[in-house]
Amino acid sequence: NSPPHRKWSERKVTIFTPMSDQQETGPTMRRLSQLESVVLWNRARQIKRELKQGVKKPYREVIDISWGDPQGGGIKPLSFVRQVLAACHYPQLLNSDKLPEDVRQRAERLLKECAGRSTGSYTATQGIPYIVKGISEFITRRDGGVPSFPNNIYISSGSQCMSAVKTGVLTPVPCYDKVNMSIRELGGVTIPYYLHEDQGWELQIEELNRALESAKGVCNPVALYVMNPGNPTGSLPQRRSSFSWLMSEFVSYKKVLAEMGPPISETVELASFHSASKGLIGECGLRGGYVELVNVDPAVMEYIYKLFSTDSCASVPGQIALNLMTHPPQPGDPSYSLYNEVIMTITQLIVFEVLNSVPGFSCQPVEGGGFAFPRLHLPLNAIHKAKEAGMQPDEFYCVRLLEESGLLVNPGWNFEQKEGTSHFRMNIMIKEETLEGVLRRLVSFHTKFMKEFS
Amino acid sequence: NSPPHRKWSERKVTIFTPMSDQQETGPTMRRLSQLESVVLWNRARQIKRELKQGVKKPYREVIDISWGDPQGGGIKPLSFVRQVLAACHYPQLLNSDKLPEDVRQRAERLLKECAGRSTGSYTATQGIPYIVKGISEFITRRDGGVPSFPNNIYISSGSQCMSAVKTGVLTPVPCYDKVNMSIRELGGVTIPYYLHEDQGWELQIEELNRALESAKGVCNPVALYVMNPGNPTGSLPQRRSSFSWLMSEFVSYKKVLAEMGPPISETVELASFHSASKGLIGECGLRGGYVELVNVDPAVMEYIYKLFSTDSCASVPGQIALNLMTHPPQPGDPSYSLYNEVIMTITQLIVFEVLNSVPGFSCQPVEGGGFAFPRLHLPLNAIHKAKEAGMQPDEFYCVRLLEESGLLVNPGWNFEQKEGTSHFRMNIMIKEETLEGVLRRLVSFHTKFMKEFS
Repeated sequence: NSPPHRKWSERKVTIFTPMSDQQETGPTMRRLSQLESVVLWNRARQIKRELKQGVKKPYREVIDISWGDPQGGGIKPLSFVRQVLAACHYPQLLNSDKLPEDVRQRAERLLKECAGRSTGSYTATQGIPYIVKGISEFITRRDGGVPSFPNNIYISSGSQCMSAVKTGVLTPVPCYDKVNMSIRELGGVTIPYYLHEDQGWELQIEELNRALESAKGVCNPVALYVMNPGNPTGSLPQRRSSFSWLMSEFVSYKKVLAEMGPPISETVELASFHSASKGLIGECGLRGGYVELVNVDPAVMEYIYKLFSTDSCASVPGQIALNLMTHPPQPGDPSYSLYNEVIMTITQLIVFEVLNSVPGFSCQPVEGGGFAFPRLHLPLNAIHKAKEAGMQPDEFYCVRLLEESGLLVNPGWNFEQKEGTSHFRMNIMIKEETLEGVLRRLVSFHTKFMKEFS
Repeated sequence: NSPPHRKWSERKVTIFTPMSDQQETGPTMRRLSQLESVVLWNRARQIKRELKQGVKKPYREVIDISWGDPQGGGIKPLSFVRQVLAACHYPQLLNSDKLPEDVRQRAERLLKECAGRSTGSYTATQGIPYIVKGISEFITRRDGGVPSFPNNIYISSGSQCMSAVKTGVLTPVPCYDKVNMSIRELGGVTIPYYLHEDQGWELQIEELNRALESAKGVCNPVALYVMNPGNPTGSLPQRRSSFSWLMSEFVSYKKVLAEMGPPISETVELASFHSASKGLIGECGLRGGYVELVNVDPAVMEYIYKLFSTDSCASVPGQIALNLMTHPPQPGDPSYSLYNEVIMTITQLIVFEVLNSVPGFSCQPVEGGGFAFPRLHLPLNAIHKAKEAGMQPDEFYCVRLLEESGLLVNPGWNFEQKEGTSHFRMNIMIKEETLEGVLRRLVSFHTKFMKEFS
């Protein structure tokens, strides 16, 4: 009478986050998971209080770019998304001609799919069928026709699917810390594989084999965890990578799996996540994500259904956000132009150029996602000083950066980076004006810091 | 290095849902958890299809009152709640004088507490501090001054807290099925204690002792699960009950715990849940609930923090709903009168009176919550017929009820009722017009059914 998820150990499972990661989290969580970093976050809170009390500092406010929260960072939500949400919550607005025609139509359509025409009703376990079907159409389109089936899709408010993983999981280094934390929390073992920084954080077959070897006698590796784009690295899988093909832009692992043909395309299990939190719509607070499960054993599928059903249903506002993300306004629609005011690419370029122009920094291209993960080449003196203070070198750097410039970034050692290297992760999904200030503060502090310790 | 939740086994934990249960769920979930009831839900879907195709039936539509979803059942959401939500999502509405003054003020206040003034930002793990503090004030007020501390409160989108329970849990019979399912799913053992139907579903000390005895050699009982009001029973703990006091209206277990004084008030662990899904505001789709933890071991508190933090944060719309529920408009506020259009008490009375006036039915008073759980006194012939069909007597009744009257209710055996009794659960949080039709259909079918089998 053993639970069906035991069967996962019989084959390989690829767990994968296309375009973004659903497992993103808030600031307080980090405070606990990275107890040693408490110094940094505590100091940030303290400084905020001091500033409120009028204590004089070289800056007027702390800018927190340590986590990936575009709207928290001042980026305005997309009007189309918010207008549809407002109209769905308060349908009286449907009669107002202040809302564009396509907004009202979309809200009408979505309300029709809610029980009792209300966002306050429960939905089916997998999500509102109309929205689930829309997601499968979106995936099919994204993957150039590789079919996606609604029955394989689950909408959730969180990262519940992870709880099906119970044994060894290959996870990247560097890696968003919550991934490792969740797996370990569930009694699983994480097997680190190192991304090759100088090759744009490439995932290399030889390294995967080395990692698999290292697991021998320790645990039974059953899954490979990849993030696409990477978090914290902001990189896209490229060139000759694990599956031997060329990519120049975002390509989904699901599509690649299909292209590899049988028996691989029919046996490798894939759990592919996406969410409304990252990417262009950047709706973190609504809590909406989905997972598509491919080639998963029917017994496991039944178990997963049960797992999801114990959580009632996903937040309806989050489900609506997923519908708007997967079916944005089309050319000709009144909301089309406003929806497409995209700033990401510019931001990525600016960060890349600025950071690579300053000695002591190097930064791989930011190709996707909302983070940059520059490497710090710190002077030996700074590294010694950090040791004296009982800190990791990059933590020491980040504490000083916070103290002197009011900038809060996330030290690289929180992401289990390669021994002997230093980095930090910064959120670049912020207002362009803010970004300019951020880079000015950063470069000015960095130059002073490098001078002090060289 | 054993996880801190092991410590739960060292003392007693009371898990408790005041005023409602956060673990409520949607219809599809039941389909799976109660595999044997699949007949009923499948038939309901089929009948809906047949009606669409124009098949003639003695009714025009299926009325589904088998689960607790007021808005799904046609009850309009409260305008105040929806106006605040609309304005929070789309702050341009704050400039519109079409929204009442107090709505705009509340939305302004809540937006001020969101990072970047947006509902699309992450929040702290426990929830937005302002809202968490508001909840603790609400609890303190509810319990006549018994203090509640924000640090003990966690807002969630689901019933995550349950995952801390790993051993024996005393659960009521009848009981909402998901409770038992979740506990077993997590490897726990449920120890049934029977509520005394004829005494208004009273919880009796002798019965608790019997249940505890029954667990000997089977598991280590560490927690008592109570629902207040009961689900499916709709009853409130009353008269001389487990804690030897008299109650005439809703009294929280937290308050009673405090009144019992030391050492009990300082050692019995209590996890008290509440949600926006049930009760007056009835916002099921927004997914917002909270748990207050009392007397819980600091090591366990740290573990719980971690547990919640792996799920990022709760849905912001759900958090807003909790704020509006715990701080409704006050007398004098423009939205006060509209907010207080309460229909529940009337509905409860009607159901109680109608059901007790028809032979073959008996129904305990519905004192809270949104369900009635009438008992069926079925003729022996009907019970035999059910056996022949391979069904439980009340399932047989419910299938016939659906077939002949288009009414979908939830058979009592899904709630693990006392052997040899028959019941069904019906949602009474529905529009009054609908309720009238429901009762008419029910009584007419019931009379015919009783005649057929007696």
